[in-house]
Amino acid sequence: MEIDTKTQFCGVIGNPVGHSLSPAIHNAAFRTLGLNFVYLAWQVEAIGEAVNGLRALGNFRGASVTIPHKVATIQFLDHVEPTAKRIGAINTIVAEKGKLTGYNTDAIGALRALREGGVDLKGQRIVVLGSGGAARAIAFALAAESGAEKLTLLGIEDRERTTLAKDIRSAAAMAVEDSFLDESTLRQVLPESHVLIHCTPVGMSPKVDTTCVPASLLHEKLSVMDIVYNPRETQLLKDAKRVGCKTIPGLEMFLNQAVAQIELWANQSAPVAVMRTVLESHFQ
Amino acid sequence: MEIDTKTQFCGVIGNPVGHSLSPAIHNAAFRTLGLNFVYLAWQVEAIGEAVNGLRALGNFRGASVTIPHKVATIQFLDHVEPTAKRIGAINTIVAEKGKLTGYNTDAIGALRALREGGVDLKGQRIVVLGSGGAARAIAFALAAESGAEKLTLLGIEDRERTTLAKDIRSAAAMAVEDSFLDESTLRQVLPESHVLIHCTPVGMSPKVDTTCVPASLLHEKLSVMDIVYNPRETQLLKDAKRVGCKTIPGLEMFLNQAVAQIELWANQSAPVAVMRTVLESHFQ
Repeated sequence: MEIDTKTQFCGVIGNPVGHSLSPAIHNAAFRTLGLNFVYLAWQVEAIGEAVNGLRALGNFRGASVTIPHKVATIQFLDHVEPTAKRIGAINTIVAEKGKLTGYNTDAIGALRALREGGVDLKGQRIVVLGSGGAARAIAFALAAESGAEKLTLLGIEDRERTTLAKDIRSAAAMAVEDSFLDESTLRQVLPESHVLIHCTPVGMSPKVDTTCVPASLLHEKLSVMDIVYNPRETQLLKDAKRVGCKTIPGLEMFLNQAVAQIELWANQSAPVAVMRTVLESHFQ
Repeated sequence: MEIDTKTQFCGVIGNPVGHSLSPAIHNAAFRTLGLNFVYLAWQVEAIGEAVNGLRALGNFRGASVTIPHKVATIQFLDHVEPTAKRIGAINTIVAEKGKLTGYNTDAIGALRALREGGVDLKGQRIVVLGSGGAARAIAFALAAESGAEKLTLLGIEDRERTTLAKDIRSAAAMAVEDSFLDESTLRQVLPESHVLIHCTPVGMSPKVDTTCVPASLLHEKLSVMDIVYNPRETQLLKDAKRVGCKTIPGLEMFLNQAVAQIELWANQSAPVAVMRTVLESHFQ
């Protein structure tokens, strides 16, 4: 595909962006779909200027937004999708006729990864570890459409966690509990839980042998998703597999948030298999 | 070349940009040089937002600026090259460490096209037809570095032409005259002139058989450059060739302004032959 005056462009806005896999995945997706699109990478400090500038550039179709701009970007958009607004953070911009709309496909991607991994959420008791941006996005997505019976938030940042619990309670039909994350709480909560979603950075490369959850507390009735995707198989997932749990690696959530972005920008189904191949190739 | 997190991007800022040849030429140049660059096209109305936004985006390397933004862009730049500042218009932005500098390669391109076409300017009497943006850029370039003896500006917009003449006089060592453009002035001026540079839109497609200069006033001692490049050979150039004049087509100026842009962005010689081939292929 030759770049010409009709080529639409997208990109990732973050700081840093040097290790982002998004250009590789999204350019492969556009190429596979035969779309005249390119996807760039933008290290950005002045987020307001960047967003207002992209709005002013013809052929801008959208962006991925990552750390540290997921919250601050919202004020510069024209519209924000309701769940993203409740989360208070976006990871995706879609440009349409000069207007920018924000979405949160982290939330969408997490639910898709669970569903495609065969994890039923309806009527289940779910534990989320952590209370940062990813935990917040996933908790609101669960509140909005999982049909779960109960959500337990465990985290070490008391204020952040209690705020999140309060915000979720006002949005959700399900029961919401929260507590400090330590071994004794896990010992109480995990036996009666069906799904565990790990949303802290523990276990991320290079500290690959760390985990929040003592292996002895895992049981085979538990489905375990880890949002950490580097390494592909974290210590938590290794321990969970050994016990016989269903496991969903973080790569699946990352893949599905990217798939949802392609669908928003291209208005058609994303080439999931190609995107998975590109993503996996970067971890071999 | 795969697009990745290190890919630098450029583009053309204008309104409209749908018929711009710049993406084709510049992407071909980057590819030939083996550079990890892409070149896009941006229709822009809010020029301040666009320029400030591009400054805020990492990997932005520069832009071509075309009608109607060549003058208004200046106020949003960090620096402007002195000749471009005197012209009061830029057609090129170069981004370096988050600072934007403006250049006018229309001026540079016109001089190069004349020189490469074998037209000696030193000590010569030059006539410029027109007083708009292109005439202004070329007149200042001539004033700055041609060593010409005399410059005669002929145009139909009295105020624009006299202002230009005044501005040039204050910048140039050569004699500068100006007068209304009509047949009787041409009859007076052309016999004693060595170089004629046509900078009005007359003769541009679709009105391809029009010209400002009656063929009977052309003579073989005159070198004739037309900045109109669509059609490639204007009525003026046809008439000039018939009389035996040296002729420089507008495509050469267009090519050379693009060549100068590549040199600014890539810090190396541009692949002129490839760029000429791409440009010519769009006129066949």
